[in-house]
Amino acid sequence: MSELALEAQKLDAADELAPLRSRFVLDDVVYLDGNSLGALPANVPDRVADVVRRQWGELRIRSWEESGWWSAPERIGDRIAPLVGAAAGQIVVGDSTSVNVFKALVAAVRMAGEDRTEILVDATTFPTDGYIAESAARLTGRTLRAVTPAEVPGELGDRTAAVLLNHVDYRTGRLHDLPGLTAAIHAAGALAVWDLCHSAGALEVGLDEHGVDLAVGCTYKYLNGGPGSPAYLYVRRDLQPRFDSPLPGWNSHTDPFGMSPSYAPAPGALRGRVGTPDILSMLALEAALDVWDGVSVAAVRAKSLALTDFFLRCVRAYSEPGRVESVTPERHEERGSQVALRCDDAGEVMKRLIARGVVGDFRHPDVLRFGFTPLYVGFGEAERAARILGEELA
Amino acid sequence: MSELALEAQKLDAADELAPLRSRFVLDDVVYLDGNSLGALPANVPDRVADVVRRQWGELRIRSWEESGWWSAPERIGDRIAPLVGAAAGQIVVGDSTSVNVFKALVAAVRMAGEDRTEILVDATTFPTDGYIAESAARLTGRTLRAVTPAEVPGELGDRTAAVLLNHVDYRTGRLHDLPGLTAAIHAAGALAVWDLCHSAGALEVGLDEHGVDLAVGCTYKYLNGGPGSPAYLYVRRDLQPRFDSPLPGWNSHTDPFGMSPSYAPAPGALRGRVGTPDILSMLALEAALDVWDGVSVAAVRAKSLALTDFFLRCVRAYSEPGRVESVTPERHEERGSQVALRCDDAGEVMKRLIARGVVGDFRHPDVLRFGFTPLYVGFGEAERAARILGEELA
Repeated sequence: MSELALEAQKLDAADELAPLRSRFVLDDVVYLDGNSLGALPANVPDRVADVVRRQWGELRIRSWEESGWWSAPERIGDRIAPLVGAAAGQIVVGDSTSVNVFKALVAAVRMAGEDRTEILVDATTFPTDGYIAESAARLTGRTLRAVTPAEVPGELGDRTAAVLLNHVDYRTGRLHDLPGLTAAIHAAGALAVWDLCHSAGALEVGLDEHGVDLAVGCTYKYLNGGPGSPAYLYVRRDLQPRFDSPLPGWNSHTDPFGMSPSYAPAPGALRGRVGTPDILSMLALEAALDVWDGVSVAAVRAKSLALTDFFLRCVRAYSEPGRVESVTPERHEERGSQVALRCDDAGEVMKRLIARGVVGDFRHPDVLRFGFTPLYVGFGEAERAARILGEELA
Repeated sequence: MSELALEAQKLDAADELAPLRSRFVLDDVVYLDGNSLGALPANVPDRVADVVRRQWGELRIRSWEESGWWSAPERIGDRIAPLVGAAAGQIVVGDSTSVNVFKALVAAVRMAGEDRTEILVDATTFPTDGYIAESAARLTGRTLRAVTPAEVPGELGDRTAAVLLNHVDYRTGRLHDLPGLTAAIHAAGALAVWDLCHSAGALEVGLDEHGVDLAVGCTYKYLNGGPGSPAYLYVRRDLQPRFDSPLPGWNSHTDPFGMSPSYAPAPGALRGRVGTPDILSMLALEAALDVWDGVSVAAVRAKSLALTDFFLRCVRAYSEPGRVESVTPERHEERGSQVALRCDDAGEVMKRLIARGVVGDFRHPDVLRFGFTPLYVGFGEAERAARILGEELA
């Protein structure tokens, strides 16, 4: 056994989060794609079966009240809140991330007022955010400009309405400076909208602490909610009365069953709801959040950094120098919970890795992505993945 | 046994659709709320369990391709298509009805061109359509005017961009004249957007035959897709190249995994997609659509009319004259698949009916709604519901 394999054994033995792995359904595959689709929490299948057979099959329409279906978006939002550093009453779950980006950005622009005519968007963002930002700009009569997060402070001005940024870059795994950028955006009188897809559940976000205005995120990556589980929307409490949704569906009405022909928004986070929530996907997510019971996000973050540090060391040890190049920052304060390695034949290499039981993913044109979910990935797996990667690169 | 009960027995014995009831999980409750939440199809629990345990739990990320997750929105759209009279390739499933109303209406207004400055909306519509129409008008710089469906032909003009109408009124159960109104809207050079929530799965819609431009609908009523199952969007084939979505998420990109920073819409119905689809809710719907195998919508419609006719006769026989008033049209060509009865104490009456195992619902302020899903409701149940209603009204 190599020295690194021995070291991995020791690290796993000392890992206080290691027992959490039993809360998931896993096998011999080294699953490093939890940053794309989280693994199945072990309690989800029975919960979903109950939702289908008893709540839908037996109680049917009564479940909207009796099984808590109606209030699920805000109830589950309150379960996510502590994971992203938000007090209760500021998050609702529902719709896709794209739809929530649209709500958040249009609402932010409206709050900023008519004199502020420009939206800035992260030029390195996951594409959907850019596409939706373009639509939001077009529909609200603003201009849109793409800049890198590093450029944001220098590009802000008294015309800036809102800035849409990714907390962690989906490609490189770079963690952006949420506190600093939010402060800079506020100093310019603009609103900060953060996309937490690649950070929530992997590291501390501190939405309330850092005064973020609006935020969105998906729940199927580090929150393990299942394929296409609903996204969420955070609206800071003091901004909620001014949250003017471009998607004012009946679920956000202050009296939804009054069936009034005129719209009157509900108070609070509820205002971010739109139509009837997708209950099966949503309640699977609710069950999935049980894995966080008693888990500290700070401990998750510490393990995540230890895992990615160790994986990078192993990659260097097992791969020919220069064969792959890490595009993930070395500095902890700039690193999310994934490692992205660049090599020209990344697409082919990832296929071979998957065939050998190491599942990461490929991002066009030349990036190998390895996501580290501290709840269920161990150091032994990091070592094994790096070793097999080294063999496949040779 | 009363004469009506005997007649019900004969009608049930002669009902060719009666065996379909075994495709659902039902009990002794007379479930007349399938127009709000359809009953559980018997094959759904095992299918959902397989999606959770095997597709998510074992295959994980591979299921996006291997289990057909990625193509589910258009594949399931093609399953719905024949139920609403549409050829394949024109429907995608995803998002809520409200979100789809937004996509359809903004896209319709854009197709109509800048000279057409007014949107007409059904004044009797389910509220969310009106709220969303107001937002669509505001964001596209159009005015919005609410008119009744009967008033539409007289209110159309060369400024009309689009008209949003309900096929069946959610409150009264009135069926509107889709062919005639669509023709009138087209004669004025405007686009017709139909909401099929209360008609799809209960009667023939004929989207292609009648030249409807765009349509939306939910899938959890007569299509039995489960609580909050995703809605769908129909864009007529020849309009698809001009469908300019206000929600251009990455799932509607022509090369979604190219991760291009600039948006280029996919051809065809795919253009109506937005973000990552909610797979659990979506695949439950796909399984639920199996109950339609070999079922003719014309036969469903014939039984629906026979059921509502019979129920109205029973209500008249069992209730004191004048105690309730039907607000559902007598004429078949004006009737959907529900019966709405008005009485001042409707809220209280419905509570007592539910306690006695007859489940309909109450719509503020004075309407008792009884939905008849011909796939699983029989004449004996219609008679029993009317009899118990008569007792509770006495």
